[in-house]
Amino acid sequence: MRSIKVGVIGLGTVGSGVIQVLQENAPDIRQRLECDIQLKRVADRDVALLQKVQGDVIRSENAQDVLTDPEIDIVVEVIGGIEPAKTFILEAFRQGKNVVTANKDLIAIHGHELLEAAKAAGKDLGFEASVGGGIPIIAALKQSLTANKFSAILGIINGTTNYILTAMYEQGRDYGEVLAEAQKLGYAEADPTSDVEGLDAARKLAILSSIAFNSKVTLSDVYVEGISQITSEDIQYAKELGCTIKLLAIGKNPEQGIEVRVHPVLLPLSHPLAAVNGVFNAIFAVGNAVGDTMFYGRGAGSLPTGSAIAGDIISISRNIIYNATASVHCTCYNERPILPSSAFISAYYVRLSVADEPRVLASLATIFAEAGISFASIIQKTQKENQAEIVLITHPCRESQLNDALAQVRVYDKVRSIHNVIRFEENPAPT
Amino acid sequence: MRSIKVGVIGLGTVGSGVIQVLQENAPDIRQRLECDIQLKRVADRDVALLQKVQGDVIRSENAQDVLTDPEIDIVVEVIGGIEPAKTFILEAFRQGKNVVTANKDLIAIHGHELLEAAKAAGKDLGFEASVGGGIPIIAALKQSLTANKFSAILGIINGTTNYILTAMYEQGRDYGEVLAEAQKLGYAEADPTSDVEGLDAARKLAILSSIAFNSKVTLSDVYVEGISQITSEDIQYAKELGCTIKLLAIGKNPEQGIEVRVHPVLLPLSHPLAAVNGVFNAIFAVGNAVGDTMFYGRGAGSLPTGSAIAGDIISISRNIIYNATASVHCTCYNERPILPSSAFISAYYVRLSVADEPRVLASLATIFAEAGISFASIIQKTQKENQAEIVLITHPCRESQLNDALAQVRVYDKVRSIHNVIRFEENPAPT
Repeated sequence: MRSIKVGVIGLGTVGSGVIQVLQENAPDIRQRLECDIQLKRVADRDVALLQKVQGDVIRSENAQDVLTDPEIDIVVEVIGGIEPAKTFILEAFRQGKNVVTANKDLIAIHGHELLEAAKAAGKDLGFEASVGGGIPIIAALKQSLTANKFSAILGIINGTTNYILTAMYEQGRDYGEVLAEAQKLGYAEADPTSDVEGLDAARKLAILSSIAFNSKVTLSDVYVEGISQITSEDIQYAKELGCTIKLLAIGKNPEQGIEVRVHPVLLPLSHPLAAVNGVFNAIFAVGNAVGDTMFYGRGAGSLPTGSAIAGDIISISRNIIYNATASVHCTCYNERPILPSSAFISAYYVRLSVADEPRVLASLATIFAEAGISFASIIQKTQKENQAEIVLITHPCRESQLNDALAQVRVYDKVRSIHNVIRFEENPAPT
Repeated sequence: MRSIKVGVIGLGTVGSGVIQVLQENAPDIRQRLECDIQLKRVADRDVALLQKVQGDVIRSENAQDVLTDPEIDIVVEVIGGIEPAKTFILEAFRQGKNVVTANKDLIAIHGHELLEAAKAAGKDLGFEASVGGGIPIIAALKQSLTANKFSAILGIINGTTNYILTAMYEQGRDYGEVLAEAQKLGYAEADPTSDVEGLDAARKLAILSSIAFNSKVTLSDVYVEGISQITSEDIQYAKELGCTIKLLAIGKNPEQGIEVRVHPVLLPLSHPLAAVNGVFNAIFAVGNAVGDTMFYGRGAGSLPTGSAIAGDIISISRNIIYNATASVHCTCYNERPILPSSAFISAYYVRLSVADEPRVLASLATIFAEAGISFASIIQKTQKENQAEIVLITHPCRESQLNDALAQVRVYDKVRSIHNVIRFEENPAPT
């Protein structure tokens, strides 16, 4: 039986997950593939991590030892970050190797260049694990559903923020308290910025949108807002409106160009994504033949990410056996414009405190009407000290219209404070 | 640019969907695949259907014309049923062609034989469309998630019954009334037996379980109960218990053997499958690396099924280009026993009417206790004429234990009627 040899660079959470999956499930993988997948070399600068690896494996402190081993067919890059990961991957292609990576930072910025390098070398680059952990969304978009044209892709693709928002929703707790708990449980990093400010989700959205819309989308194209401004009051109002609040990654492909944005939304409980809770992820995609689809699973973690990487290793092994590497390549054959955020159309939730006096609501309605915006619903509650809290739900409008209205609201002397402005997506991807 | 030639046998709902997808999305498919997929021939005995096909296509009343056309690379069999579909597919392999089918009847019974025939001919047999319409579950199990061992697979895989149960749940209506409506809307056949009695779901479960558990499972292995006995009263009690009622296809792979069953269940609203409503399908799979995953989408219909078939055509085309056909073959390398229904373990919902007298409940508890079954909860309501309706929710027990208890209940003279017995799956696939 043929043997495909694998080298792993990086023995952190993801690297150890890949190794565990390949070793534990080796007998089944051998029978399914009719080929042996042999973990030949591992590399990490941390000697303690090297020593933890079980079995008949060559351990090295130097990534070059993996990259230049002539027997290795597939290099798994799981160190993360831009450099030296990028240099390693390009070197692997030069050395005639296929590559599997979970590196969303790198793919979201340099994915196109790396895929071109893979094609030039006649090799495969697998990156299923870069989006949605164990969820096989990239294979679905690039292969099973490739007979479709996609109009929209929506994702809950950051487990940290979904854990925080779920706990806030279910337990009525405050953002800061839940974040601290998530950090203690290991669901949030010590510096949580990349997760809570939406950058992690934006990287994954760039990758998904490039594939779904066949046009290059990179991190800098994505409009991003995080969840750190969401309060327990907002969650409570969302409940009253039959909604939950989720950090949604939204990619759309209307005639004018590509719309890519990550921000919190009020989402009706009836939407399939509203039931995606805790650290789970889900990607909802709308194709012109298949209609609405959704893919759900664990978006992170050692074994789920290891499952995705092992899946790529097995696919590439099959391609190696049949001399079919580089058969699925970069499909960004369109060059579509990226729409500016001023063109986004959305309904809005606007929560503000005003003087509890007659005619204030009428004046607000006039201000919004002058910007061409009408209200879908209004919640008003009287607070202490002659102050009323008002929640306005607008009908869909352009972001530029909303900004015009908010500029007027800010200078209206009866308005004490604009607490929050959150997009309200009643049907974020109409079929 | 290379051109792959396709012939379609059968121009019903599914056949016309495939053709529409291939024709409408041809420019994108060409760029993604870097190859042309040409619909060369179509065959149907119905001349009116032949005339409806657009474009430069050879129309034939005889399937043999497709099977023997030496230029055709891929034959799409979408006539359904066992014969002549089986003969056509075997003939296609003999003629050196690859085959794509949506035929669950055939795959659920003769799948193994057909896959062996494909392998012997060195050709591919694609059957993604046979389960879950447009949902790419077979590719996910056989390829993306193939590094996993699966412990369970749960599916809502029949749209007709899910439409009926959803309407009963949401509108409090009766089974017969909703079925009649579904027939009027085209969601149920004039003879709905195969759907409502669970046979359609059982076929799909046989296919999914064979793949997930790597052991041959055929239709006759599956224990089947349908939904025709579910009443609006049962749905109302389910609501009171925080549940919905779904027709669930359940495959499990414990040490003793494979458990495959299709029957209605009370499912807690918190389970991801509980939110799958109307004609939508979803498959929930539990792998030892990936954990819980779910795949959601339209389980039937012309274009969703066409999407799955076109996806298979594109995959096979790639294999043809790279001489890699027959690279993914039958993976039923285990021969596991099928467990009898008496070994199934489940909690139960038992609804019965009894004389409204003291000690009746105590006597029932004694009867169940003697069979080794205790109650998790009890709902009792007094009806007219000194009669009380009782709903018993048992703790999990073997089906054989429940049957022992029910035999005693039937002869207990205070019991007026056993209205219904439904399985209660609090956590149908514990990770």
